[in-house]
Amino acid sequence: MEIKAEAKKMKQSAPVLAASTIEQRNQALDFIATALEQNKAEIFEANKKDMEYAESKQIAQSIQKRLKYDENKLRDSISGVLELKELSDPIGKVLMHRQLDDGLILKKISVPIGVIGVIFEARPDAMVQVASLCIKSGNCAILKGGKETANTNRVLFEIIKNAVIKAGLPEQCLLQAEQHNEIDELLKCDSDVDLLIPRGSNQFVRYIMENTKIPVMGHSSGICHIYVDKDANREEALTVILDAKKNYPAACNAVETLLIHRDIATEFLPLLAAMFTEENVKVNGTAEVQKLMAMEVGIMQEEEFAMEYNDMEISIKLVSDVNEAIQHINYFGSHHTDCIVTENDETAEFFVQMIDSAGVYHNCSTRFADGFRYGFGAEVGISTGKLHARGPVGLDGLVTYKYVLQGKGHIVGDYSSGKRKFKHKDL
Amino acid sequence: MEIKAEAKKMKQSAPVLAASTIEQRNQALDFIATALEQNKAEIFEANKKDMEYAESKQIAQSIQKRLKYDENKLRDSISGVLELKELSDPIGKVLMHRQLDDGLILKKISVPIGVIGVIFEARPDAMVQVASLCIKSGNCAILKGGKETANTNRVLFEIIKNAVIKAGLPEQCLLQAEQHNEIDELLKCDSDVDLLIPRGSNQFVRYIMENTKIPVMGHSSGICHIYVDKDANREEALTVILDAKKNYPAACNAVETLLIHRDIATEFLPLLAAMFTEENVKVNGTAEVQKLMAMEVGIMQEEEFAMEYNDMEISIKLVSDVNEAIQHINYFGSHHTDCIVTENDETAEFFVQMIDSAGVYHNCSTRFADGFRYGFGAEVGISTGKLHARGPVGLDGLVTYKYVLQGKGHIVGDYSSGKRKFKHKDL
Repeated sequence: MEIKAEAKKMKQSAPVLAASTIEQRNQALDFIATALEQNKAEIFEANKKDMEYAESKQIAQSIQKRLKYDENKLRDSISGVLELKELSDPIGKVLMHRQLDDGLILKKISVPIGVIGVIFEARPDAMVQVASLCIKSGNCAILKGGKETANTNRVLFEIIKNAVIKAGLPEQCLLQAEQHNEIDELLKCDSDVDLLIPRGSNQFVRYIMENTKIPVMGHSSGICHIYVDKDANREEALTVILDAKKNYPAACNAVETLLIHRDIATEFLPLLAAMFTEENVKVNGTAEVQKLMAMEVGIMQEEEFAMEYNDMEISIKLVSDVNEAIQHINYFGSHHTDCIVTENDETAEFFVQMIDSAGVYHNCSTRFADGFRYGFGAEVGISTGKLHARGPVGLDGLVTYKYVLQGKGHIVGDYSSGKRKFKHKDL
Repeated sequence: MEIKAEAKKMKQSAPVLAASTIEQRNQALDFIATALEQNKAEIFEANKKDMEYAESKQIAQSIQKRLKYDENKLRDSISGVLELKELSDPIGKVLMHRQLDDGLILKKISVPIGVIGVIFEARPDAMVQVASLCIKSGNCAILKGGKETANTNRVLFEIIKNAVIKAGLPEQCLLQAEQHNEIDELLKCDSDVDLLIPRGSNQFVRYIMENTKIPVMGHSSGICHIYVDKDANREEALTVILDAKKNYPAACNAVETLLIHRDIATEFLPLLAAMFTEENVKVNGTAEVQKLMAMEVGIMQEEEFAMEYNDMEISIKLVSDVNEAIQHINYFGSHHTDCIVTENDETAEFFVQMIDSAGVYHNCSTRFADGFRYGFGAEVGISTGKLHARGPVGLDGLVTYKYVLQGKGHIVGDYSSGKRKFKHKDL
């Protein structure tokens, strides 16, 4: 397929999709939900092929679990699409309404971004979720899923695309890329693609960020910290740390580094050692950490602290106070999600103010950094960039705005000459 | 100066400036205003040197006008700073306040972007305006002004920096770059600089956009259109067109291309020809335009329509209907500001919906695309990008947000296991 030519056509269709009514877009979601249920035999058949291939290639069981698309996952996909339908229309919102002068009215109105390229990991539910989010927000989408679920993706994409066309939306609004080399072609479409959202390994996301002029939203790493202050509730700290590491170690919002206040180290590190030994968490840390933990501790140098394990492994360092913790996190962190555990509200407030991350938490697990948990209904990814959208990105992150100015022959010359004056009155 | 090392120090100071109170930041603006008045003799003396140099280099009079900094311009600068002081604090706003569960409270809070690099044209008032906007919004700034006003800039920068320090803000929050080669150094500071705002020639802005990994906000070109519909009020169309071209031809929001409905061409083009002849506007257009205008018309080929003159010169083309106008504008335009002149509200509504630009206007001059005219108090530039900020960018475009989550030892495991359920209640 010629991605470049297709993207150009899509760009022309983008204003048509943007002009569609919320009823049409919601109907498309309805049709998607129905069609998924009606065509489930075909979907499962395709998924069986992907699973057999994965089996033959001896792909790790943990990954095979993600590739599998069964009744349970289909049900979750369908209910996800129907929940999305219930959310209010993110486009056409009047964000500002101002009279500049008599008969000269300015409105700032939310509109879709236009054409979005989403490259996502091999998970069939991701295809359904990403396509639905783009349709709901009126964005055209080029979708490229992981190759390990190529058969399932192809069937799902056809089902979704047919449903969308049936609802009267433009045929060009969805496009599937299937070949890996098409990604490189997509990266060059900077005149027609408005935004890229890559998901997957750090290395892959970094590759995308470094090889395109298209704006990229996402995160290449998730180096999350928990700082255990001297005024921390010890029990609470242990519970939060264990959840943040163990609940899903491969997730970007799992904790990677613990910073422990030196004043409580002799008391707290033995408790940590006992817990990590029992839970089979591998520990790395500085020499002083090693001395205080009755377990094997890999010795780390200062410059090694920007480490993302994505596994049952963790870094530990002692700090003298909250200031040193803040400096460490702002320097070594990836500005994703960082937490303080303390009973001292003043210290917590200072930490929250000074940490330069998308999420700053007090006394709770970093694993809460997620669009569903925040109540966004769905998420297209998590951004560690500071522009446009930061943190979990839901429908609101998929829109921009335009300024609409309505006049009656108004000219700027009348204001430069002083003949007329602006009124600037919000309506 | 070592820009890279300085930017790193600045990054460390950014959270301190972000934590400053609005009283401190407003006091800094007060001190700036007072110090400008008190040190005006020194400022004018420095500007005299710049003007003498410009004179000796025979720089065009129109540019010399921009370099000059006199009592009038100083007064405008001071009143601009004091008006900025009156605007509400853009940071610390609670944009979302949601109970995720009992005792688990999520807030989305506006915060400064962090470290911003602004590269601006040789205009002393720009130095004052840009520095003040960054201070008001709590952002650290690296400022590089045009070399033609180097002496004036140096004096202004010192005055501003001293005022900011006097108000108790961190010393590192402002930095001036003076050498052109420091721009290239700045472009490499992607780990410490969060945003670049380049202003100046198309070529320069494009160079910045293509040579850095730092997000860039701005516009490289302003190819604005006016479409004169068959249902246009002819008089109004002429008035709006003249203002959009003549009010300030070098501005990015000046009109560059006219699209005229073919049905009114035989009647309207002669009116245009008379006006453009009188006003000395050079005209280029298609062969059919040439035939209908009793004046010299340079012949244009279709592919030449992405033309930005920045001068008393304009392109003209005939179109069959609003659809063709929309297609032309979305294809050849720079998504800056485009206008329809028509008395038909239905046609206007369709145009406004379908044009993919930061500003879409009906019956008024494209020259209104400006932060002051929109009532933003000040602007740092105009963005033709779709992400983060679009159109004229004021204080709101200089902030991002962070999510603050406050818990009592909450863990995600309790929700995965079904032990607890999210409440997602907006507060």
